[in-house]
Amino acid sequence: MTDFDATRQLFHLPDGVIYLDGNSLGPLPKSVPARLGQTARDEWGEMLITGWNRAGWVDLPRRVGDRIGKLIGAPGGSVVMGDTLSIKVYQALASALEMRPDRRVVLSDTGNFPSDLYMADGLIRSLDKGHELKLVAPEEVKANIDETVACILITEVGYSTGLRHDMARLTQKAHEQGALAIWDLAHSAGAFPVDVLGGGADFAVGCSYKYLNSGPGGPAFVYVAPEHTEAARPALSGWFAHEAPFAFDLDFRPAQSIDRMRVGTPPILQLAALDAAMDVWDQVDMSDIRARSVELCELFIREVERRCPDFELVSPRDAERRGSQVAFRFAEGYAVMQALIDRGVIGDFRAPDIMRFGMTPLYISPDDVQRAAEILGEIMTDRLWDRPEYRVKAAVT
Amino acid sequence: MTDFDATRQLFHLPDGVIYLDGNSLGPLPKSVPARLGQTARDEWGEMLITGWNRAGWVDLPRRVGDRIGKLIGAPGGSVVMGDTLSIKVYQALASALEMRPDRRVVLSDTGNFPSDLYMADGLIRSLDKGHELKLVAPEEVKANIDETVACILITEVGYSTGLRHDMARLTQKAHEQGALAIWDLAHSAGAFPVDVLGGGADFAVGCSYKYLNSGPGGPAFVYVAPEHTEAARPALSGWFAHEAPFAFDLDFRPAQSIDRMRVGTPPILQLAALDAAMDVWDQVDMSDIRARSVELCELFIREVERRCPDFELVSPRDAERRGSQVAFRFAEGYAVMQALIDRGVIGDFRAPDIMRFGMTPLYISPDDVQRAAEILGEIMTDRLWDRPEYRVKAAVT
Repeated sequence: MTDFDATRQLFHLPDGVIYLDGNSLGPLPKSVPARLGQTARDEWGEMLITGWNRAGWVDLPRRVGDRIGKLIGAPGGSVVMGDTLSIKVYQALASALEMRPDRRVVLSDTGNFPSDLYMADGLIRSLDKGHELKLVAPEEVKANIDETVACILITEVGYSTGLRHDMARLTQKAHEQGALAIWDLAHSAGAFPVDVLGGGADFAVGCSYKYLNSGPGGPAFVYVAPEHTEAARPALSGWFAHEAPFAFDLDFRPAQSIDRMRVGTPPILQLAALDAAMDVWDQVDMSDIRARSVELCELFIREVERRCPDFELVSPRDAERRGSQVAFRFAEGYAVMQALIDRGVIGDFRAPDIMRFGMTPLYISPDDVQRAAEILGEIMTDRLWDRPEYRVKAAVT
Repeated sequence: MTDFDATRQLFHLPDGVIYLDGNSLGPLPKSVPARLGQTARDEWGEMLITGWNRAGWVDLPRRVGDRIGKLIGAPGGSVVMGDTLSIKVYQALASALEMRPDRRVVLSDTGNFPSDLYMADGLIRSLDKGHELKLVAPEEVKANIDETVACILITEVGYSTGLRHDMARLTQKAHEQGALAIWDLAHSAGAFPVDVLGGGADFAVGCSYKYLNSGPGGPAFVYVAPEHTEAARPALSGWFAHEAPFAFDLDFRPAQSIDRMRVGTPPILQLAALDAAMDVWDQVDMSDIRARSVELCELFIREVERRCPDFELVSPRDAERRGSQVAFRFAEGYAVMQALIDRGVIGDFRAPDIMRFGMTPLYISPDDVQRAAEILGEIMTDRLWDRPEYRVKAAVT
């Protein structure tokens, strides 16, 4: 049984803050500053260039990839870290389209994170072969998978609504129709049990700075199904994707492993932070995380709904169809969120009118959720959001 | 006048080490560990998600880009940081090829860093429009610029030989022939004065972990000539390249600024390290750096050649045609380099037989160079390299 009091002690949470935005940026694991200092002083400082071998930097993207692999049901050697989620989406999609040369449709949904769609759009423009990025409503994805589809590109949990797709079912249909499936696990990895192998994902990608707590701009991960490793041609092939990076050949020969999804020199400081942040998972059972996440979400929905009748629940009411966040719609949601942050409850706002709250059992307790709902209730009852200072929009929220 | 005793004090150099590999990975600036701690504890730890605004993370790639811009003759707002050099090469080349739709040749040279060539190869494969990556010897680039060339892709200083191209002259010829010029400044930025604007570069890219000392895997930079900002379509268009990233539009609209070369969420920890590392340039005159670098290179060549008659100088003897490194060829170069590292002199080895030594005046003095040449002389005179333990090759050198 996971001890959530113990896991909470591993994170730095500022005094007086209830942090319900770990689905956007996870909080600082207490072990990270020391690890950063160690990597900078003892490795970079003392080993200099020899750190690539002596400190194992060259393999760090694989070693950390394997740690994440355990959380998403990926076999050892099938996950590697690097770059950003956007870059990894591009690589996965470029590989998938090359594996389905006679098909022209990339199917995604309007609830997908825009950057995934922008990257797909950029790739389609570059290819200039008449591909189409077909966007349908989230609930219509399955019905639109047919023999024209090269690939489905689906984020399991919608960033805005928290709606969770049944990835295994979508993937099964895709395969029946001869299409491939790319799973974006940005809001899944570390949030609940995932099984990329069992679910038949052809490619999976995700970021590490949300539920995996690697810090701002932490590297992304990419999984390639073992049967595709040798077929995947990820378009972006830098020297670390080469079979022998340090042979400095003029011709590119892809590594015969997941390394072919690597690109350039890996970001060692960010990887070290992530590696330290991954330690918490050694003492966590992912099914406990899921059970507690559902408990927190249901508590929050219940307690908010009875205090804030003007809010509309955007997330599915059925836990099975929901990720680890709760979203409400309210016309003045931006101002409400500012008032809430001012009172120490941090969630976030997604235009035009959605307030998002991430539920992260590693460091958020039922008491926190209860208290957050009470504060939200006070803000609504007393119209505390209706002040000029809460209505001024900042660049990022 | 730059005070090199003062700049040397800003770096951590391990006891007993003479570090002649700053052209591969710069050493640790003493200010970096504290800055990493501050970014982790005071920003990420205390501000959590609000750090994107309150700590200015969202603009950090631009602010740091402007600092590098000053070293390479780029106007404010024309340089941005992110990703890796390989990714930035891809973006620059994709933009350039789109700007020259009727041409099919990408001209580069066999001395270019392989990853640049691999990325070009990957792009050409993706485009599948009959582009050709034409590789010629470094001294033959100029003669091969003709009206078939869409773009020249040249690393100013060859990573292996140290040969320095006359970028302004190549670029002038390229423009006369209607071609564009991409400058890879990996071994230039921070090594000597660069003038991308005066030299007419259309795009310039480079990494920050060599002469700019940002640490392993530090982010890359990209410059776009101001007249091309609105024409550049960098292929990899993530959400931070959008005109309004936080509007979460389903359609991509490129930022009307250098931001369109950004891709995904920027690596804040690595950027913070780089930002701290950039402070040294506030007290440095780049022409002093160049004068001192030439002095160090000539001293090293002279002192090594009189001790090691079996070595062949690979770098140009003429300082004008050389970057800030010196390379020698010797059949047993690998073993010599291991013996040298064992004695505290760190250079590096590039297959099949090249020993490279970077000259970095910020923290390397004439005394260091003299001493390194003496140790190298002893290794050769006494055949100290001819031991089994120096002949075993590690994965990375």
